[in-house]
Amino acid sequence: MMEHVLCAKCIDCGKEWEARPDITTCPSCGGLLDIKYDYAAIRKAVDHKVMAGRSEQSMWRYMEYLPVLGKGSRPKLRVGWSPFYKADRLAKTLGLKTLYVKDDGVNPTASLKDRASAMAVVKAEEAGAEIIACSSTGNAASSLAGNAAAAGYPTYIFVPSRAPKGKVSQLMIFGAHVISVKSTYEDTFRLSEEAIRKFGWYNRNAAINPFLMEGKKTVALEIAEQLGWKMTDYVALSVGDGCTIAGVWKGFRDLYETGMIDRLPRLISVQAEGCCPLNRAIAENKPWEPMEENTLADSIAVGVPRNADKALNAIRESNGVVVNVSDQEILDAAKLLGRTCGVFGEPAGVTGTAGVKKALELSLIPEEASVVSIVTGNGLKDTPNAIRAAGEPIAIDPDMEQLLQIMDRL
Amino acid sequence: MMEHVLCAKCIDCGKEWEARPDITTCPSCGGLLDIKYDYAAIRKAVDHKVMAGRSEQSMWRYMEYLPVLGKGSRPKLRVGWSPFYKADRLAKTLGLKTLYVKDDGVNPTASLKDRASAMAVVKAEEAGAEIIACSSTGNAASSLAGNAAAAGYPTYIFVPSRAPKGKVSQLMIFGAHVISVKSTYEDTFRLSEEAIRKFGWYNRNAAINPFLMEGKKTVALEIAEQLGWKMTDYVALSVGDGCTIAGVWKGFRDLYETGMIDRLPRLISVQAEGCCPLNRAIAENKPWEPMEENTLADSIAVGVPRNADKALNAIRESNGVVVNVSDQEILDAAKLLGRTCGVFGEPAGVTGTAGVKKALELSLIPEEASVVSIVTGNGLKDTPNAIRAAGEPIAIDPDMEQLLQIMDRL
Repeated sequence: MMEHVLCAKCIDCGKEWEARPDITTCPSCGGLLDIKYDYAAIRKAVDHKVMAGRSEQSMWRYMEYLPVLGKGSRPKLRVGWSPFYKADRLAKTLGLKTLYVKDDGVNPTASLKDRASAMAVVKAEEAGAEIIACSSTGNAASSLAGNAAAAGYPTYIFVPSRAPKGKVSQLMIFGAHVISVKSTYEDTFRLSEEAIRKFGWYNRNAAINPFLMEGKKTVALEIAEQLGWKMTDYVALSVGDGCTIAGVWKGFRDLYETGMIDRLPRLISVQAEGCCPLNRAIAENKPWEPMEENTLADSIAVGVPRNADKALNAIRESNGVVVNVSDQEILDAAKLLGRTCGVFGEPAGVTGTAGVKKALELSLIPEEASVVSIVTGNGLKDTPNAIRAAGEPIAIDPDMEQLLQIMDRL
Repeated sequence: MMEHVLCAKCIDCGKEWEARPDITTCPSCGGLLDIKYDYAAIRKAVDHKVMAGRSEQSMWRYMEYLPVLGKGSRPKLRVGWSPFYKADRLAKTLGLKTLYVKDDGVNPTASLKDRASAMAVVKAEEAGAEIIACSSTGNAASSLAGNAAAAGYPTYIFVPSRAPKGKVSQLMIFGAHVISVKSTYEDTFRLSEEAIRKFGWYNRNAAINPFLMEGKKTVALEIAEQLGWKMTDYVALSVGDGCTIAGVWKGFRDLYETGMIDRLPRLISVQAEGCCPLNRAIAENKPWEPMEENTLADSIAVGVPRNADKALNAIRESNGVVVNVSDQEILDAAKLLGRTCGVFGEPAGVTGTAGVKKALELSLIPEEASVVSIVTGNGLKDTPNAIRAAGEPIAIDPDMEQLLQIMDRL
């Protein structure tokens, strides 16, 4: 509710601006903006009992914490309130006391990015926009395409040509104007920013538009509520551009500041070994530097993270743990989650879980810890890598003899 | 709740049997069994107010209508309570007064079949089973694999080798023992039945196991509740094996008999032109005969429908409409749903919507009608056909000049 929003504050120069729906970066220094709330007002409006009595089961359940006038007048997809599982068998396999899995692949376009895109569509309406645009490694793109299609907005979407077929097929089905850029994500992003300026489209680039992180933070609000407001010691997730981990941290901070949770979790920031500029900066305690984009986990193959500052703040403020995993560890985590939880994540989606395993192996977190692992995207978005992880089935003729031979082998 | 279950009654010979959790077909004549309820007892237990006060948002919301002792002791995926959208833009495009879309692709393994598989896992536990098996064109398989993995059951799953990669990748990730049969679905089904008998596995073949239809019927219970218990004139869905349409009808019948809805919708049974044995039987008013499996909508490419009798009963009892659509009409419907609703369905998933369009064109239903169209599976399960429907994106270098040229063309 906009009456709870104080301003949009630059994280670099500290200047405060009116949180207009089309504001992007700091008009003064170009730094990233952060939406600030009147926590006392939110505190007055909600408590555990109010939340328990609420029937809305979507991200809009948390209106008091969201920077919107309302839900907008246009049709919308049902985003959020994704499943939350206690993963005892997986915990046992990993040698961890308590583990929960938040499956954000069960969203309308099958990723956590729906939370940001749903927000973008509502803010675009508030801004009186006619067209929405973004660049993305895939999920932000497909979620924008789907959420905008539901609301009747045309979209222009820039993806690097390496984006997996599954995500591209979503864009095309949702009727987006898709520009596939034969280069890196960085080049793709730059071209989209230039085009957005030139054509005056509404900007859904997650780092640039400060409202999108506010959509993403709803995953943290849900986790806390699904835990009965008793936070775990850690929350693990994969990190690419940095917006999601920054949003998750913002969510927990908002809840803490308004008295809804009484302690903050430590974040486990998991990146791919082949592309870990943020984790490297934390580990070496120096400014981040660009890296190559060398991992099969396409959604987090971000060599130049656009939301680096907020992400680094989040990890540091939470006294976070950083851990990098190999592509093979990512594929193994996909199988592990599938077999023990029935949850199918895309490579970047299961990277958080791969990181929990690795953090235990490296004794970065204790076995007695309680952890939430966020699965950020559905495995159906990238079936070639799923088959790479889990193999092909046994093919036989419709013949009982052949079957018996196979049963002997199994 | 089992206290509401009277018996399992043969739809052929009429004999009544105790509804044991491992009962399959009629022990006397081999006919299909139907679970019968004490409607007076259900009526006493629920009404609109009771339902409105319920917080459970999954298929288990409707325990009074389900043939189970409870939800079982094992972990489970969150199945059901899928999104329900008023589809005004699509209605307008089709020239229809009122249209709703029920998106059952937003389920843990991304299809309506999760409802049956979740039921299978609970009944397997009641039966004391150790292994669960089925044959499937894909979705029943992947949903069984996922729901069983969550509960810790090993599975043996038989699929025809034509099953799309997306579905096969799910099976492999979920750790199922997958037998890919190089032949038709009919041969695949037969081999699975032989193996299930030989090895004593719990049978999740949907026609054979009478409980699974009871899981599927929850989609109808949800639709009715999401409509505020005011039924539409029609409910449209794709038809393959016949279990889903029979389950949907059972759900509406249960609600009608227990006073929860005051009228029954007419079913619109949609099949592919290349494989429509059930619709042909209705249209020509004669017994069904096998057909070839000639459609890209793999989930409904069923030449020998295993639940033909219940499906035909459902269509006839509802004074239903039958309509067949071409593969091209299916692909067009995928685009239409994506562009106007932000809903991405697999080919069989959007076939119901293709049927609504065709039924209007053929004046089989009036423009003033109100219709619910059920999307039965997620488009991410079959991305090659999505790309076939919607095309490939425009590829350019990261260069503003090239982009401007493209903008001119668009």
